[in-house]
Amino acid sequence: MSALPPTVAWIGGMPGALEILDQTRLPLETRTLRLDRVEQVFDAIRRLAVRGAPAIGVAGAYGLIVGIQGFRPHAAGAAGVAELLAHAAKVGEYLKSSRPTAVNLGWAVDEVLSHLKNLAPKLTKAEDAVAAALERARAIDADDRERCERIGRHGASLLRDGDTVYTHCNAGALATAGIGTALGVMYAAAREGKRLRVFADETRPLLQGSRLTAYELHAAGIPVTVVCDNMASRVMQTHKIAAVFVGADRIARNGDAANKIGTCGLAIIAKHYGVPFYVVAPLSTFDFGLADGSGIPIEERAAEEVTEIAGVRMAPPGVGAFNPAFDVTPASLITGIVTEAGIASPPTPQTVENLVRRG
Amino acid sequence: MSALPPTVAWIGGMPGALEILDQTRLPLETRTLRLDRVEQVFDAIRRLAVRGAPAIGVAGAYGLIVGIQGFRPHAAGAAGVAELLAHAAKVGEYLKSSRPTAVNLGWAVDEVLSHLKNLAPKLTKAEDAVAAALERARAIDADDRERCERIGRHGASLLRDGDTVYTHCNAGALATAGIGTALGVMYAAAREGKRLRVFADETRPLLQGSRLTAYELHAAGIPVTVVCDNMASRVMQTHKIAAVFVGADRIARNGDAANKIGTCGLAIIAKHYGVPFYVVAPLSTFDFGLADGSGIPIEERAAEEVTEIAGVRMAPPGVGAFNPAFDVTPASLITGIVTEAGIASPPTPQTVENLVRRG
Repeated sequence: MSALPPTVAWIGGMPGALEILDQTRLPLETRTLRLDRVEQVFDAIRRLAVRGAPAIGVAGAYGLIVGIQGFRPHAAGAAGVAELLAHAAKVGEYLKSSRPTAVNLGWAVDEVLSHLKNLAPKLTKAEDAVAAALERARAIDADDRERCERIGRHGASLLRDGDTVYTHCNAGALATAGIGTALGVMYAAAREGKRLRVFADETRPLLQGSRLTAYELHAAGIPVTVVCDNMASRVMQTHKIAAVFVGADRIARNGDAANKIGTCGLAIIAKHYGVPFYVVAPLSTFDFGLADGSGIPIEERAAEEVTEIAGVRMAPPGVGAFNPAFDVTPASLITGIVTEAGIASPPTPQTVENLVRRG
Repeated sequence: MSALPPTVAWIGGMPGALEILDQTRLPLETRTLRLDRVEQVFDAIRRLAVRGAPAIGVAGAYGLIVGIQGFRPHAAGAAGVAELLAHAAKVGEYLKSSRPTAVNLGWAVDEVLSHLKNLAPKLTKAEDAVAAALERARAIDADDRERCERIGRHGASLLRDGDTVYTHCNAGALATAGIGTALGVMYAAAREGKRLRVFADETRPLLQGSRLTAYELHAAGIPVTVVCDNMASRVMQTHKIAAVFVGADRIARNGDAANKIGTCGLAIIAKHYGVPFYVVAPLSTFDFGLADGSGIPIEERAAEEVTEIAGVRMAPPGVGAFNPAFDVTPASLITGIVTEAGIASPPTPQTVENLVRRG
């Protein structure tokens, strides 16, 4: 992990700046962006320079600080604090509009705002309000890192020295402020001295596997081999795969899990070969309003993501594509769900509830 | 099919020329190449301007005619015929070296050569020998077309008006001299007035699905939707798929079938959803020397086919790839094997043997 600059970090104190690793340049160029204007943060989130639900949340929280730290109220005292709060609310709305469907972004921005609002009656200086907001943003950042660590430790207990594992998409350090979820398991195992080998599928259409997962595992010194998505069966026929580890975008109460398109097909193939299949995600990924996965909406994205690659047209003009961004893997295909509170294995409404009580 | 120029055809009589559809230009440009020098035929086969086992065989047979039709022996009579035969043997070796592992190429060239050799004692003019060779090449071409037609009719009996089907890679008119195998089933059904809709997966790494299958189905007026390989499970979750149809490169006596990488994973997913899975191939694809699929060698190709797309590097420098070109689908995952002699369903050593007796 040492070779990889932080995905998202606050640099300096107050004033300070948000630094992010520009993921649009990966894997060919490792460039860190220093963002000290809120418009730059908006732009970085909008154009996916920072991505992954937890990482976007942390970037949004720090982005709010970027947007309010230079604010100078007209009035002094409590009136100045009120002016700052009004400004912060506007900055928050602006930042949230950069990716309206990113739940974590809205959650993190609102978390900082409500912290400010709660503290406001006790504050007499706008500067103190900014300092309190930064403290809350740092806590969100630290909380994400700490949850990744705990997830990693639980997951690492499933692995032995010499194991070969398989992963899909990028549920790694590049998607969180910490060591990641599915890949966090591998980093935690590696720290324990377990030597692993990883197959990372490329994850069409946007290639997060070959572009991002291969990049961060390689930077961390974990041997990684890229395959096309359709090679999973052959990999499991020809190599002893200890387990598959994937992330999740939303998990229903019964353990049905929505994740990047291709996850469910991979789970079906893993089951066929008797390879354990683990979903790795923080408890915040559970949506307890959903009894099962049938209620999870699946976004369909532009056909061009399928019919073009790197801007080059592959399919004939006039031919359309079906491009669901996610699929839902039923709990029956999942060996266990690894969280910061432990592993629900097999995932059932009861084992999931037990985890939540513990978490 | 009317909108699509022939994949491979002999133009004129003697002298004539081999015309091929340049598949390296598809799907963005439809260009026919007229090849009247044997070096051009060699080059077209080598750089995959013509591809697909049966199509390469027909191109090789006609390529031999291109290479011998201008030959003028020094001697007259039987001595001249012998000179021509010696020349033809050299041309044949040269053509076969354009793709040394293509079994059909070697078979078709040798077929024309041994026909010539058998006839030679009765011939007194070199021109007659060339005419006889052309006749044999035309017969190979016609035989391929006719087998495709019979395969198509058998397969079409499995489909009903309004069905939606799924296919992988390109086992179509672009891979044969006729209407193809897996796609031939769809063309035959369409001719019978059955309206079909086809999902074609793109087939990484070389994208024969989005580039070639989508092209020829679209040209034939059959509605086709392209998906990424990892979307098969989602397609089967959200659409009623009547059946999957794929081609085969080599089939063992028990029905285990080697085909383009990704076929076996697709068969596992189809079985999970209860979708019938058909392998479509001429009887010549069976290798009766193999009791089962474990003896089929699987070619591994260059890592760059996975790590680069359209010449653009996707994976980080220093990261390797595993790139098996084929996988083997066990007979237990195959609903039936559709051939010109009928359908072996389920494929077993017995049902396969019955077909061969009938064929």
